[in-house]
Amino acid sequence: MAPATRLHILTPEAIEKLRSVTTATLTSQLLKRGFRNTFISGLTPLRPDLRMVGYAFTLRYVPAREDVGFYVDYDNATNVQRLAVEGVGPEDVLVIDARSEVRGASFGHIIATRIMRRGAAGLVTDGGLRDSPRFRLLDLPTYFRGPHAATSSVIHHPVDMNVPIGCGGVLVMPGDVVMGDAEGVVIVPATVAEEVAHEADEQEKTEEYIVQRIQAGESIRGIYPLNEQHRSEYEAWRAQHRRKGKP
Amino acid sequence: MAPATRLHILTPEAIEKLRSVTTATLTSQLLKRGFRNTFISGLTPLRPDLRMVGYAFTLRYVPAREDVGFYVDYDNATNVQRLAVEGVGPEDVLVIDARSEVRGASFGHIIATRIMRRGAAGLVTDGGLRDSPRFRLLDLPTYFRGPHAATSSVIHHPVDMNVPIGCGGVLVMPGDVVMGDAEGVVIVPATVAEEVAHEADEQEKTEEYIVQRIQAGESIRGIYPLNEQHRSEYEAWRAQHRRKGKP
Amino acid sequence: MAPATRLHILTPEAIEKLRSVTTATLTSQLLKRGFRNTFISGLTPLRPDLRMVGYAFTLRYVPAREDVGFYVDYDNATNVQRLAVEGVGPEDVLVIDARSEVRGASFGHIIATRIMRRGAAGLVTDGGLRDSPRFRLLDLPTYFRGPHAATSSVIHHPVDMNVPIGCGGVLVMPGDVVMGDAEGVVIVPATVAEEVAHEADEQEKTEEYIVQRIQAGESIRGIYPLNEQHRSEYEAWRAQHRRKGKP
Amino acid sequence: MAPATRLHILTPEAIEKLRSVTTATLTSQLLKRGFRNTFISGLTPLRPDLRMVGYAFTLRYVPAREDVGFYVDYDNATNVQRLAVEGVGPEDVLVIDARSEVRGASFGHIIATRIMRRGAAGLVTDGGLRDSPRFRLLDLPTYFRGPHAATSSVIHHPVDMNVPIGCGGVLVMPGDVVMGDAEGVVIVPATVAEEVAHEADEQEKTEEYIVQRIQAGESIRGIYPLNEQHRSEYEAWRAQHRRKGKP
Amino acid sequence: MAPATRLHILTPEAIEKLRSVTTATLTSQLLKRGFRNTFISGLTPLRPDLRMVGYAFTLRYVPAREDVGFYVDYDNATNVQRLAVEGVGPEDVLVIDARSEVRGASFGHIIATRIMRRGAAGLVTDGGLRDSPRFRLLDLPTYFRGPHAATSSVIHHPVDMNVPIGCGGVLVMPGDVVMGDAEGVVIVPATVAEEVAHEADEQEKTEEYIVQRIQAGESIRGIYPLNEQHRSEYEAWRAQHRRKGKP
Amino acid sequence: MAPATRLHILTPEAIEKLRSVTTATLTSQLLKRGFRNTFISGLTPLRPDLRMVGYAFTLRYVPAREDVGFYVDYDNATNVQRLAVEGVGPEDVLVIDARSEVRGASFGHIIATRIMRRGAAGLVTDGGLRDSPRFRLLDLPTYFRGPHAATSSVIHHPVDMNVPIGCGGVLVMPGDVVMGDAEGVVIVPATVAEEVAHEADEQEKTEEYIVQRIQAGESIRGIYPLNEQHRSEYEAWRAQHRRKGKP
Repeated sequence: MAPATRLHILTPEAIEKLRSVTTATLTSQLLKRGFRNTFISGLTPLRPDLRMVGYAFTLRYVPAREDVGFYVDYDNATNVQRLAVEGVGPEDVLVIDARSEVRGASFGHIIATRIMRRGAAGLVTDGGLRDSPRFRLLDLPTYFRGPHAATSSVIHHPVDMNVPIGCGGVLVMPGDVVMGDAEGVVIVPATVAEEVAHEADEQEKTEEYIVQRIQAGESIRGIYPLNEQHRSEYEAWRAQHRRKGKP
Repeated sequence: MAPATRLHILTPEAIEKLRSVTTATLTSQLLKRGFRNTFISGLTPLRPDLRMVGYAFTLRYVPAREDVGFYVDYDNATNVQRLAVEGVGPEDVLVIDARSEVRGASFGHIIATRIMRRGAAGLVTDGGLRDSPRFRLLDLPTYFRGPHAATSSVIHHPVDMNVPIGCGGVLVMPGDVVMGDAEGVVIVPATVAEEVAHEADEQEKTEEYIVQRIQAGESIRGIYPLNEQHRSEYEAWRAQHRRKGKP
Repeated sequence: MAPATRLHILTPEAIEKLRSVTTATLTSQLLKRGFRNTFISGLTPLRPDLRMVGYAFTLRYVPAREDVGFYVDYDNATNVQRLAVEGVGPEDVLVIDARSEVRGASFGHIIATRIMRRGAAGLVTDGGLRDSPRFRLLDLPTYFRGPHAATSSVIHHPVDMNVPIGCGGVLVMPGDVVMGDAEGVVIVPATVAEEVAHEADEQEKTEEYIVQRIQAGESIRGIYPLNEQHRSEYEAWRAQHRRKGKP
Repeated sequence: MAPATRLHILTPEAIEKLRSVTTATLTSQLLKRGFRNTFISGLTPLRPDLRMVGYAFTLRYVPAREDVGFYVDYDNATNVQRLAVEGVGPEDVLVIDARSEVRGASFGHIIATRIMRRGAAGLVTDGGLRDSPRFRLLDLPTYFRGPHAATSSVIHHPVDMNVPIGCGGVLVMPGDVVMGDAEGVVIVPATVAEEVAHEADEQEKTEEYIVQRIQAGESIRGIYPLNEQHRSEYEAWRAQHRRKGKP
Repeated sequence: MAPATRLHILTPEAIEKLRSVTTATLTSQLLKRGFRNTFISGLTPLRPDLRMVGYAFTLRYVPAREDVGFYVDYDNATNVQRLAVEGVGPEDVLVIDARSEVRGASFGHIIATRIMRRGAAGLVTDGGLRDSPRFRLLDLPTYFRGPHAATSSVIHHPVDMNVPIGCGGVLVMPGDVVMGDAEGVVIVPATVAEEVAHEADEQEKTEEYIVQRIQAGESIRGIYPLNEQHRSEYEAWRAQHRRKGKP
Repeated sequence: MAPATRLHILTPEAIEKLRSVTTATLTSQLLKRGFRNTFISGLTPLRPDLRMVGYAFTLRYVPAREDVGFYVDYDNATNVQRLAVEGVGPEDVLVIDARSEVRGASFGHIIATRIMRRGAAGLVTDGGLRDSPRFRLLDLPTYFRGPHAATSSVIHHPVDMNVPIGCGGVLVMPGDVVMGDAEGVVIVPATVAEEVAHEADEQEKTEEYIVQRIQAGESIRGIYPLNEQHRSEYEAWRAQHRRKGKP
């Protein structure tokens, strides 16, 4: 039961940039570095209006069995889920490996309220959530596979925290950077997160220019991707932009 | 083709309470009584703003075949779907066993308008619905698996009503209590529904208190679940609450 | 790489009517003509507030392989996706056979902006879309299976355009009429589209009358479907309606 | 709980022919008569060496619930499964609608031994079977979706017999003719079974001739299907065959 | 990386009995003790002619990522899969949590040969196996979900051993008793395994008698389950049996 | 309707080697060259006793529609399936993109007999086959997803041949090398097939040695993979082997 580890801490600038770029841009940057499988498919945001940036605090569930913590009143001193709830800290994103199981919940809104109060940056599960309508009222970026009213213990229960897990078919290492927007969640390996944040921001500036040109009626030929001629035009636009005090 | 049976009729107080509690609370109460599988997974509410409380009026579909009521103009005198439509009465929730089939609809908005006029309390299907955008305008709590524009008869058709069915993997007996909120639908076995309604209401009062404490910054330790000390604090809060005329 | 073919061009009246009827009505008309499988299941509209009417411009994807256009910077002169983007014209609906694959995107919002500028009437894919939140801001009727931030090239890439394809299990021939509303997308075979448009409009007028009667509290017996007596009442209502200058 | 009904009884000749033709040929004949969906997908024969011909005796399962015949010692006087076991007679094929559920068994080898002794012609379930290795030693044609050691009662239980059911997505009416070979199971609607049996036999004779020609090295052109010239050659071959005393 | 733990060691008599009873009987005994979910669905035996009895040695896989042990030449000193291979001992059954993933292998026949030489009692995975045809020649009871020729590292890799895992939706604790026959695999919780082994043997003797009676043509009424009269007949038969020296 | 193209022709030595190595070894060699997705999951061999080596001749199916070649007597002069049957030549493997659809067949045994007579090296489909029991008697290596008695035309029909296709999620280019054994089918990109064949053979010789050592009781440490010391021992063994006239 190791605490969350953060081998790499992002600079405030990188965090700022991660708050503005999209998961789409991040996966492009990760693909350039050889990472093919970093976006978690099949999740729905319960607060699509919020951005999520934080470090992975992982929680692993296994199938339930009648002799293993089944039907018990939760003992907050030993129950792994409860230890995790009181272990999560500021900037942590609690990421749950619920084995993509949606025939039961994997978390509820009362303990979610608690991790929010503890400073958690978000909640991600590849399983179900109960009281999901109330999650829509909670100021915590939350992603799940689907609603389920039933408490989880009949279906599965947590046994480990801060170990490598799979979430929706994607590897999550404790301390990885977790970013979410209205599209979904991307896991950014900690070792490349700082660099990726900065280059993603650059990429988005270029794409902003490209979209403007295309909205103005131009063909994608030469524009997307930029050929040499258009790249120098873009550089000029970018420079001018900067002079106006824009980032 | 038996009419809907209602072996157990809820008191007005129980109905009132069922209108305010959540499906999450109900499944907790049912689990305490040994019922593990009462929430129907995978359904979407078309009117998440409405609560649904009523008694199950069941309808069972089988796969279509070209010699069995296929392509026919519906004969309202013999067609089981149409008999059901004119058989549903006040407080009935029409629950359809569509075999979780979404490659066709299992009900449409015209006949749904009719059951609403007949006083139906809701509509639940584990299959498709057609004209689903119009269902969003109908004052009838409705739950389905997904939209499908095609009339059902090519895929399946009803053969039975008010028999035990499965809906989304959950048993539904005619006369069971059916409750729905924005999370989904729970089937409350008729024999325990009255008792469950009252205890669910109690549970929600306790949880309201717990959430207040957690929102105020307290740990879940001792609070969720309440230990002895906090339980007496809660009882005091509850008593005070009652003096203020709150339920 | 044939251009889009349009063997049958709809009259302006038919297009007008297709803009007002529902996919539900169209599938009924198609079923009457023997077409059982024309509605694409499992898609979500990103702009449910818009209607889509156009002709199918098809694009076919195959699984990716590391030696076939993998990881390349897109060459707009030879890449099939890019040729399609600059080949789509007014009233075309780009329909993508993405093999129902949602572990990657099949299109993104920059090139979608371009086809919108070229006059495209819509975009339909049985796969993923990236930058899906931005699609909600684009004035282009768009239907997809789910969001995915990752560029498609790791998973699949287009090899053909304007060939017969399957989309969500439904045949789409280049030039077929494609209609979409908030329920989903229906493929209307080009040979029957004109006729279907007119009869769908008639059907909806009848159903409008039926719904009024049912909302007024009448039984479906004799009304839905109309028996002879009610049909003549309907004809009278219809005639009166027309005199008031309604269509 | 009606007994099995047999509206149409096959002649001994038809039964004889059904024992020799394949499910492939039967579906062709059924398709000619407009029946598109008669073969049950996804089943495995436990005795692929045996042919099955009989009349459908149906049994319908619903999901289990803790208050409905759960965990009980089977009461053979009231339990529907046991009533069915002692209700099945000679030439009956017991066809189970297990809702395609494979997370539990729907029948076991002890009661299967009993229906074999009662003269049953076969057993078909779209769910699981327990003690499946022993079924391989039983002289009863049996088809299932997969093995599962667990008794069914935790997952589902039977509530009805000899009602219309779905089995693997195919309609089965009590009294329908059920035919099985090593490929799987086809449901032949009772009204057309006699005719289909005879024409299927004819079709197989033609195909036997076609296969001989193709094995001899001829093209399928003109042979499959037979054009006029080859049809007359076939008729001659057929006549000669008959003279030799072959059927 | 704890070694395999065996909190409960079976007596030789229990092991002997587990080698002769079926998984079907074991799940019945487990259900009597409240365990509803102990049989792993969806696995195929590669050696259905062999019985498997041993203690669970667990191995947990997570999804692959390009920066985590991807494409590496296996280092036998640190790679978890290789440590497990050389950690497995006599009577261990290696049980792999491969997340039910069949798009890659989770084990191959060379390392399987090694664990067989080390005395392993079997191999169970809810994922793929490569070189599966060779497994059919190996004297090691093996269960898998399906064949896949590709080495696992592209899809997933092991991170943990001898931790609680899920395998095909069933909880497996290190040291649990694992039994397999031609039907599949059942996980017997260590605490009840001794008792279950003995009672399963008793149950099978009763069922042997029941089957004999049913094969002789008797009804299941009174026989299955045995009523009082038949139970005393059975006891007599059993006693006589024992006198003949049978167990 | 281009004929099959073969950009790369294998040497007889390479073909000989492909006939003896396994799909497992081939995927290892392909992975070394960066190809991650070349094995087709989910297929079953109907003749697991035969090896298959040939060049891909592709055939593409789309969903059926009532106005497009539906219910027709096959016209061998224009029907794409029939043109393919008479277009397949020696060493061709007919590979069908049936969209992984198993609710109908995609090929039958009569036309399979014809392609065998024309010299085809095998048949691979990611869909169904009808008359599948007869395929087990045909001397043609055949792989399919499952049996289905129904002729394909109700579900889908072929529109293209010798175009790039997906088969079971794997890209198949016309002219790619297709190899099958009892495990399944691997698609070897034409450009690397010659080289891969030779190196796969080398790999298998090494593995033969490794397996011998492991069977003799040695640890995998140092042996699998071979460290420097054991590699030189292997080289000596290999040289000795060659002197004995083995390859």
